[in-house]
Amino acid sequence: MSIPTINQGRLWQAHMEMARIGATSEGGSRRLALSAEDAAARALFLDWCKPLGLALERDALGNLFLRRAGTEENAAAVAFGSHLDTVPTGGRFDGVSGVLAGLEVMRALDEAGVRTRAPLELVNWTNEEGSRFRPAMMGSRVHAGNLPLDAALAVADDAGVTVAEALRATGQAGVLAPAPRGWAAWLELHIEQGPVLEATGTDIGVVTGTMHARYFQLVITGAPSHAGATPMERRHDSLAAAAEVVLASERIARAAEPAGRGSASWIENFPNARGNVPDVTRLHCDVRHMDAAAAMAMERELRAALADIAARRGVRIDVDPYATFGPVVFDAGLCVLLRDAAAARQLSVRDMVAAAGHDSVFAAQLCPSAMLFIPCVDGITHNPNEYASPEQIARGAQVLLDTVLALAK
Amino acid sequence: MSIPTINQGRLWQAHMEMARIGATSEGGSRRLALSAEDAAARALFLDWCKPLGLALERDALGNLFLRRAGTEENAAAVAFGSHLDTVPTGGRFDGVSGVLAGLEVMRALDEAGVRTRAPLELVNWTNEEGSRFRPAMMGSRVHAGNLPLDAALAVADDAGVTVAEALRATGQAGVLAPAPRGWAAWLELHIEQGPVLEATGTDIGVVTGTMHARYFQLVITGAPSHAGATPMERRHDSLAAAAEVVLASERIARAAEPAGRGSASWIENFPNARGNVPDVTRLHCDVRHMDAAAAMAMERELRAALADIAARRGVRIDVDPYATFGPVVFDAGLCVLLRDAAAARQLSVRDMVAAAGHDSVFAAQLCPSAMLFIPCVDGITHNPNEYASPEQIARGAQVLLDTVLALAK
Repeated sequence: MSIPTINQGRLWQAHMEMARIGATSEGGSRRLALSAEDAAARALFLDWCKPLGLALERDALGNLFLRRAGTEENAAAVAFGSHLDTVPTGGRFDGVSGVLAGLEVMRALDEAGVRTRAPLELVNWTNEEGSRFRPAMMGSRVHAGNLPLDAALAVADDAGVTVAEALRATGQAGVLAPAPRGWAAWLELHIEQGPVLEATGTDIGVVTGTMHARYFQLVITGAPSHAGATPMERRHDSLAAAAEVVLASERIARAAEPAGRGSASWIENFPNARGNVPDVTRLHCDVRHMDAAAAMAMERELRAALADIAARRGVRIDVDPYATFGPVVFDAGLCVLLRDAAAARQLSVRDMVAAAGHDSVFAAQLCPSAMLFIPCVDGITHNPNEYASPEQIARGAQVLLDTVLALAK
Repeated sequence: MSIPTINQGRLWQAHMEMARIGATSEGGSRRLALSAEDAAARALFLDWCKPLGLALERDALGNLFLRRAGTEENAAAVAFGSHLDTVPTGGRFDGVSGVLAGLEVMRALDEAGVRTRAPLELVNWTNEEGSRFRPAMMGSRVHAGNLPLDAALAVADDAGVTVAEALRATGQAGVLAPAPRGWAAWLELHIEQGPVLEATGTDIGVVTGTMHARYFQLVITGAPSHAGATPMERRHDSLAAAAEVVLASERIARAAEPAGRGSASWIENFPNARGNVPDVTRLHCDVRHMDAAAAMAMERELRAALADIAARRGVRIDVDPYATFGPVVFDAGLCVLLRDAAAARQLSVRDMVAAAGHDSVFAAQLCPSAMLFIPCVDGITHNPNEYASPEQIARGAQVLLDTVLALAK
């Protein structure tokens, strides 16, 4: 038995091999949830797990749990992991680094001949990104009981394919009913997806909580008319109304900087015909803020803007606030352990609040949870140019490993 | 031989039967160019033409020419007609009334036993609307030599189906090479698609010309990033830039009222994923004005706005001004004949400028051409509620018939 140590080269090599699945010409990876590419990524990951003797369980939503036995098999497990799915313009690190760092933890323990007291569980969550099937963080959301399994299975992508169909088509549906597994703790390593760690020369971000986020699906209904013959003042143009919503959402978010964010990211326009004034436009937008009350104030501002736009333009705007996440305050005790582990390795640390949604938001509803961030170049993410260096990933993985050992002894 | 007279009931009946093809639950018709519905409408129209002994010719783009022999077979023909295709949210009169009024002219002449000196040609143009395949007025455009046949055949719809494929699939491709047919004159009856005739209680609009219109296809390229984690000031959001373009186009058009128009009617957004700041947005917009110099000034304003938006947001905006039509000044002599025909029937008349594009724009490049408008309720068009009364249509058809007789004797 030796001291378990992260193998930087092996961990980097795993990233590069995984990135080949769904590789894009721009240098990123595209592995939409439950696509053929996502299935191939899971198969490669499970191949890597095999020699480690981990016991695989797969639930009905395709979440993967790989269990390493402890000396006290009845002890609550220490769990960690992230997700292998990506957005359409995905990079090679978002989510992937959390899963592969977890795999490297298992490999390092195996190599060092260490058996922990508590069992360990390495997790790959299904559909964290929500690009293809909304809402995001679907796997952990269902696992935590925040979304009924049946509702998740019935969600369809823009082509009409449901989650249930995609699970079957890719062979990812397991027999286990999604349910809490009695974990002692949950940890997730992730790239920061922001510029702070790099700009401040910090190795490790200890994530003390997440922003409060509200997601809205809007349907704007005007009236169809001729794009040439209809006088401007007689139009009820749903796309022009949507344009105002996009800019209102941006304006509200800019006013809430640096702790607030807002995006309109998805649009569908009807009839989307060149001779027609559009009459129905669907829009997705969100507001986020570190402070829940401030996020609610942003939402009130957005709703006031919608009411004004609707009244002024004679259009109807239906608002479906279909998903909320956070704010989450992560476990203070776990944050102490993460800081201590980093300090023991002479790594610099700072506390942070996560702006993006993560599966840890739902894990935190079930057991003490925390996240650690590693720097990524220029804060670029959801982009083929997303990059974290081999050293940065290995440092983060070492802190994860040391914290897992501290918890599972 | 009697005096040829429009049969109002028969003409209305033809409208109602035609409207059943592609009928929508909202009361309109949906017959996209070269769809199964468009093909069915053409088949019904040709069935109606059969007992009249009209000689059918079909060109390679599916334009239909139905010729009624004259006593001087070598005399230049008098041609008239319009189009049977509709926008996705189409009504029962736009285009259809011009074709069916032309059919009724043929029926009335047949019934009255009148044979004209010059031959007559009734025309159904392919893809006037341009909703499925751009550009609009494709059939007449190619016929007049403003677009090469091969280029038109290669145009694909949003699903990737080309015009050539759609022509084959619907059996609409003819053997004739699209080319001018040496017409003596071209006439087109159409609903106004605006509120002026109804508001002023006028029976017939004599269209003296059309607006100048410029169509633009824009590609806005920003940079992909995470919708939660990316600080607002680090974003290059192509959808937010597109929203500014939509509103700039609207603002410029409003400032040019009542003689100017502008629309952004079609949008495609990438990756159109809920977790991503959009990085590529495609937008279609147009500017129109009765005065060509004023339309060019509107275009300059729009281009200045694009340059400002691109610079301010750090995005690229590529502009393809892919189609232009008008301004057209219709034939003054034909306009006199139309006014005289209306006056002889005790119908009220006013001169107008067309804001929409029409096939007559391209016919006017080949021979003396003019249009007559009939009132439609509240100016509503490209909408299931589009409506012209049986009386209004019959009055217009009678003016068309009388003018055709004056020309073809």
